[in-house]
Amino acid sequence: MRPITQEKFEILLKFIEEKRIDVLMICDFENARNVNLQYISGHPTDAILLITKKGESILIPGDFQLAKNLAEVDEFIDLSNFNYNFYLAIKELVESRWKKSSIIFGIHESTPYGTIIKMKKNISQIKFFNDPIQITKILQKLRATKSEYELNQLRKAAEMGNKTIKDIKNFCENASDETEKDLSFLLRKKVAEYGADDLAFESLIANTTRSHELHCYPNATNQKFALQGLALIDFGAKFQGYCSDITIPISFGQLSEEQQKMRDLVLKSYEAAIEVIDIGVPLWKVHEEADQVLKKEGYNLPYAVGHGLGLTVHDSPIIAGKPSDKYSLKHWQEELIQDDMVFTIEPGIYKQGLGGVRLENDVLIKNGKVEIITKSEYFNM
Amino acid sequence: MRPITQEKFEILLKFIEEKRIDVLMICDFENARNVNLQYISGHPTDAILLITKKGESILIPGDFQLAKNLAEVDEFIDLSNFNYNFYLAIKELVESRWKKSSIIFGIHESTPYGTIIKMKKNISQIKFFNDPIQITKILQKLRATKSEYELNQLRKAAEMGNKTIKDIKNFCENASDETEKDLSFLLRKKVAEYGADDLAFESLIANTTRSHELHCYPNATNQKFALQGLALIDFGAKFQGYCSDITIPISFGQLSEEQQKMRDLVLKSYEAAIEVIDIGVPLWKVHEEADQVLKKEGYNLPYAVGHGLGLTVHDSPIIAGKPSDKYSLKHWQEELIQDDMVFTIEPGIYKQGLGGVRLENDVLIKNGKVEIITKSEYFNM
Repeated sequence: MRPITQEKFEILLKFIEEKRIDVLMICDFENARNVNLQYISGHPTDAILLITKKGESILIPGDFQLAKNLAEVDEFIDLSNFNYNFYLAIKELVESRWKKSSIIFGIHESTPYGTIIKMKKNISQIKFFNDPIQITKILQKLRATKSEYELNQLRKAAEMGNKTIKDIKNFCENASDETEKDLSFLLRKKVAEYGADDLAFESLIANTTRSHELHCYPNATNQKFALQGLALIDFGAKFQGYCSDITIPISFGQLSEEQQKMRDLVLKSYEAAIEVIDIGVPLWKVHEEADQVLKKEGYNLPYAVGHGLGLTVHDSPIIAGKPSDKYSLKHWQEELIQDDMVFTIEPGIYKQGLGGVRLENDVLIKNGKVEIITKSEYFNM
Repeated sequence: MRPITQEKFEILLKFIEEKRIDVLMICDFENARNVNLQYISGHPTDAILLITKKGESILIPGDFQLAKNLAEVDEFIDLSNFNYNFYLAIKELVESRWKKSSIIFGIHESTPYGTIIKMKKNISQIKFFNDPIQITKILQKLRATKSEYELNQLRKAAEMGNKTIKDIKNFCENASDETEKDLSFLLRKKVAEYGADDLAFESLIANTTRSHELHCYPNATNQKFALQGLALIDFGAKFQGYCSDITIPISFGQLSEEQQKMRDLVLKSYEAAIEVIDIGVPLWKVHEEADQVLKKEGYNLPYAVGHGLGLTVHDSPIIAGKPSDKYSLKHWQEELIQDDMVFTIEPGIYKQGLGGVRLENDVLIKNGKVEIITKSEYFNM
């Protein structure tokens, strides 16, 4: 099935009409993934989706049979009739079916530049809508609030994460020489056991020697996990494409005074952010509240305090501060918290030599109520 | 360290000079990966790399400290000085350092269209080299033959795969109710145990009910694996970024006459391909030999018989037939087998109701000798 609702599909069609786009094109391929393919068609992978201004949806999949099983579109085009060449298939539509001497394609900004170049060369009738960033934005906006079906999927993904938290606690309580990788394998096994497709992303497992690194590389090592100090685990479950995202801060043994302060401050920052969340509140304000708690004590939040969850683990909206440079500010628009949004709240403090602390839970807004749907908390071992 | 050799780096610089490009730009980000970043700079992820025509390499990483640890470039730019805005960092280079009123950037064709648009808006001095596909092609060509260091990494990745083959055999010999997912977890665990970073890609584990599907979705299920008929396992190990790729065809119990014929034919097709491989032989000829064996008996090969291996599991060169449509033929160039190439050979037959058979090994060409570096073979259970 396709996750987009009929109501939102019609908003998209209205956008296409207003912008005088003839065909909206969404491409999803290896190394250039675009989850809007799945959102609009139900097909998860490797295809081009065309939406005409009349609202017809035409899918040109890499695997015809797979698409027949999974997609919900008006028409499927079998690439084997076109020597597996996407450009030839689109050329035939433009020339033989639509009989157009000039046609405007709206493309998503994630489309590789090479695709644009090849289409121009192959199909001279095609012109491109000149502001692809608007296409990204309308799709982000549609995906920022979730349907009943999507909320349900996200709740299930959260629940699978919550069950796994208990396994993590158990692992930590009994940990002696087990490595970061051992825990990483356990998480993968457990989320699957609880019904997830897979992890939402490669889990980040950092003992105290690495937990200060924002982008731990690699995600897990053969080092022992339960070393004295501040560790953290960032993981999530994916259920039928929908993601949860959870970070658990863990301390092993006695902490120094500053480490304790970092822990307390992150909790305070997290609570300040949660406290301010309400329908109609600007998203930047949530970031600001969390950041101010840290700033007052001389720390700072080196990233946006949260991000949406959905068919990607970094979905819309982003919970970031107001941009400070002129260029970004010019293109920035205030967004308000709405019903049916689902996003993370994840403040953190990171300091080489002391480690990192981050507490992350997933928040769902329904009928004006703020629900925290994941159950992360500090573990003291 | 950076995998590209000095000799190849100079070929790249000569290309830049000939095309009158001032700066070559490689971008690698989530959803738009470009392994050339790692190939040219040693940095594996999330950065923009600029190579000037003078040969200076400038890295603008998402994570400054990570880049300092991993990359081998002339200069690192700290994004925290630019509000974490890549465009502002590049703008400063163009305006303040290079003082250019007009500058030509050569970009890889995988660059998202939105990046091009944003650069044009932000930095009016930038013009783009008008044929990004040539940039893709020169990099593909450089990466199609491997250095001593790279061959060594690929041999190690193959060896980790080979060790895992024994575990798979053991699993199959003792399999009763174990699922596809159980085997999938085992593979992940074993390749890590043998020293791999990870799997080269999500393993494809298909029992006889699914082995006819070219793109099994999902990659592994909770179905029992050892069902009577034709199963297959497609997996690989990644070692310090370098990939192996192995498919093992497995039969459980008695096969029908046609299933046996499929097995025998795939083996014959595989042997025909291996037999023809030699320095100077056109790559299309290898595909052709494998395909002809199947065609004579009324089957066909629904994809290219092989692909290169390197920092991606689908590297250069591709071992495909001559294109049959006019457009592709016009842009096609014959490529010959050379020393230091590493690629897969993987013919297969797929038939709904009967299952699929594919045999895949990795081939390395060194000093004119053809070495088969992985050890897949039929398993009869």
